[in-house]
Amino acid sequence: MTYLDWAATSVPNELIIKESLEKSLKIYGNPSSQHIFGTSAKDELNNSRIKCGESLNCSPDKLYFTSGATESNNIVLLSFVNKNTSGEIISTSIEHPSVLEPIKILVKFGWKNREINPTDTGEISLSKLEKMINEKTKVISIIYVHNETGVIQPINDIIKIVREKEVLLNKKIFIHIDGVQAIGKIDLDISKMDIDSLSISGHKFGAPKGVGLLYLKNEKDVIIKGGGQERGIRPGTENLFSIDALSNCLENCVNKISSNQEKLTILMDLIIEEVRKFDVSTIPKDRKLSDIRFVPNIVSLTAPPIPGEVLARVLNQKGYMISTGSACSSNKKSDTKGILSMGITKDEGFSSFRVSIGEKTTKEEIISFIQVLKETIAELKP
Amino acid sequence: MTYLDWAATSVPNELIIKESLEKSLKIYGNPSSQHIFGTSAKDELNNSRIKCGESLNCSPDKLYFTSGATESNNIVLLSFVNKNTSGEIISTSIEHPSVLEPIKILVKFGWKNREINPTDTGEISLSKLEKMINEKTKVISIIYVHNETGVIQPINDIIKIVREKEVLLNKKIFIHIDGVQAIGKIDLDISKMDIDSLSISGHKFGAPKGVGLLYLKNEKDVIIKGGGQERGIRPGTENLFSIDALSNCLENCVNKISSNQEKLTILMDLIIEEVRKFDVSTIPKDRKLSDIRFVPNIVSLTAPPIPGEVLARVLNQKGYMISTGSACSSNKKSDTKGILSMGITKDEGFSSFRVSIGEKTTKEEIISFIQVLKETIAELKP
Repeated sequence: MTYLDWAATSVPNELIIKESLEKSLKIYGNPSSQHIFGTSAKDELNNSRIKCGESLNCSPDKLYFTSGATESNNIVLLSFVNKNTSGEIISTSIEHPSVLEPIKILVKFGWKNREINPTDTGEISLSKLEKMINEKTKVISIIYVHNETGVIQPINDIIKIVREKEVLLNKKIFIHIDGVQAIGKIDLDISKMDIDSLSISGHKFGAPKGVGLLYLKNEKDVIIKGGGQERGIRPGTENLFSIDALSNCLENCVNKISSNQEKLTILMDLIIEEVRKFDVSTIPKDRKLSDIRFVPNIVSLTAPPIPGEVLARVLNQKGYMISTGSACSSNKKSDTKGILSMGITKDEGFSSFRVSIGEKTTKEEIISFIQVLKETIAELKP
Repeated sequence: MTYLDWAATSVPNELIIKESLEKSLKIYGNPSSQHIFGTSAKDELNNSRIKCGESLNCSPDKLYFTSGATESNNIVLLSFVNKNTSGEIISTSIEHPSVLEPIKILVKFGWKNREINPTDTGEISLSKLEKMINEKTKVISIIYVHNETGVIQPINDIIKIVREKEVLLNKKIFIHIDGVQAIGKIDLDISKMDIDSLSISGHKFGAPKGVGLLYLKNEKDVIIKGGGQERGIRPGTENLFSIDALSNCLENCVNKISSNQEKLTILMDLIIEEVRKFDVSTIPKDRKLSDIRFVPNIVSLTAPPIPGEVLARVLNQKGYMISTGSACSSNKKSDTKGILSMGITKDEGFSSFRVSIGEKTTKEEIISFIQVLKETIAELKP
């Protein structure tokens, strides 16, 4: 069995997770309790927060533990739901459902959503963005790294444009970044990013499922309420075990980022170079080897006219676990809207599939995957 | 160290939790993925749901895994947030913050909240409830077991009154039950309860923190959105490890309910009988021994004029972990509003503290606790 679907969920970091579990079975108090079992749990929680602050280079006071990036995105976006006021939100057409769907809630409450399509390169057009921002724009939500293609948005240029436009329009615009596929894949220094919020999911870098992080520059009124945990931003008894594991997995992946990038780039280049020899294209088409516009662990490929779903199914039967699109979209109807704007035909979109690798992926696995992919395409081609 | 704060969080069930972790490290796929790692994860998820359905005697299709009862309560209550329509919601004055606070959001959106105070017995007045329901009433939210006093609301009588009033008014009323402190403490058969939703928290019965359950009779539009997980009711990659542990801990505590009830009742009677000998009262005052109007694991006590917080602090220093009020309220200003309506004076409320026990609590621990409590009260009394 060869697991090539790390972007859906990573192989868990057993060592860290087991250590965190042992700790949580000893320090099991409710962090809100005032006795020693509670305060020692609270201390652990604070230690985890400090560790995450160090990994992301931001003040721990601006980090909130959540149940995952879906909740992080919802906390931020739904905080704008209001009976009496609305505005315009700008997002890309390649956002994850956990951003797209809360935006639809905003639309229900009178907001207008303006979507930017990416261009042929997968990046959004900066000049289009600049024109789209107007005096009604209140929020901009951008997916840092696209979960299907690995495209990295030019986030610093985007932020610069928004902040310049803010000055020009003499108004404040809230910038939210979906950072899920960026963490551990590209250097991320929050202190250098003039953003308002960023969401992170633990299970994409070895931590357990069900835990995430939200960076929030300034406290704000939220709509999901309860006890005052996480300073009211994310109520509910804190998931100490998973929070401890997340903070350690985050530290681990940030520490190893250079060596991982190097290793993953070699494997990814091998995939891209070899599959092109048997007429498999990348999406977007012009992805180069070691292309720094993409994370090195995700590639979207297409081999028309073979439907992506058929190819994925047959490869899965042969023991190679790949996917079409994102796992989170698989509960819904197939949706290739996002990548269709990246300069490909409808047929190419229909035939797209995703290969995503991780730190445990070996060169041998990649070589045999390429061979099996080649054979499978030959079998399936009409 | 003697842990007498089980109502804040229970001692984790190590055996079950470790087994669930081992399983989750093997079956680590994203349940939304279409390959074998995904489908086997999905199978596990379904098995957990079936097990929970059996434990609660309801169809597994009506159960949704959440990150905890706070989220379960928010999913239900915030689903009524709407730009154009509002109504009246009836709740008790002793609800948990994760119910009270989302209701405040409803109020922001034009809803009217009508609160019923409990009477001297801690139960809400059925005749008052009956009078409060009118043609504007859309939702009723009731805490099944009060987290500070252990009072069990006469839930079947409450449901009966609401459903009769529904017929009379020819309208539908949504009944939401906060079941957090009821699970594993009293027999709960959802098939016999004509309710619309019920929330459950795993860490109150040995499961890890960060996982909960929502019973929802009919699917409904919710406001927290994302990928289509949990049939759209609770988006976000499913927390398989904790879900597996929850389903096994739920099964375990439901299976052992009679023997646990018996054991806890003996210990609780011992506490109540003995502390009364040195002028400590129960809240409400008329709690009897083996009183079936209360769960046997929680008691609220008061020893005026010693402030509850001082007593709890000194007892904690002596190694007995008890609390004042609920842990979740401890992030906020002390609030004795709820219990103040239970026929006690302000001083008695100010002096209240909670003792909550669990299946690992021993008679020896209780005997020495009573002795230390007696000494401590003697020391602290002016």
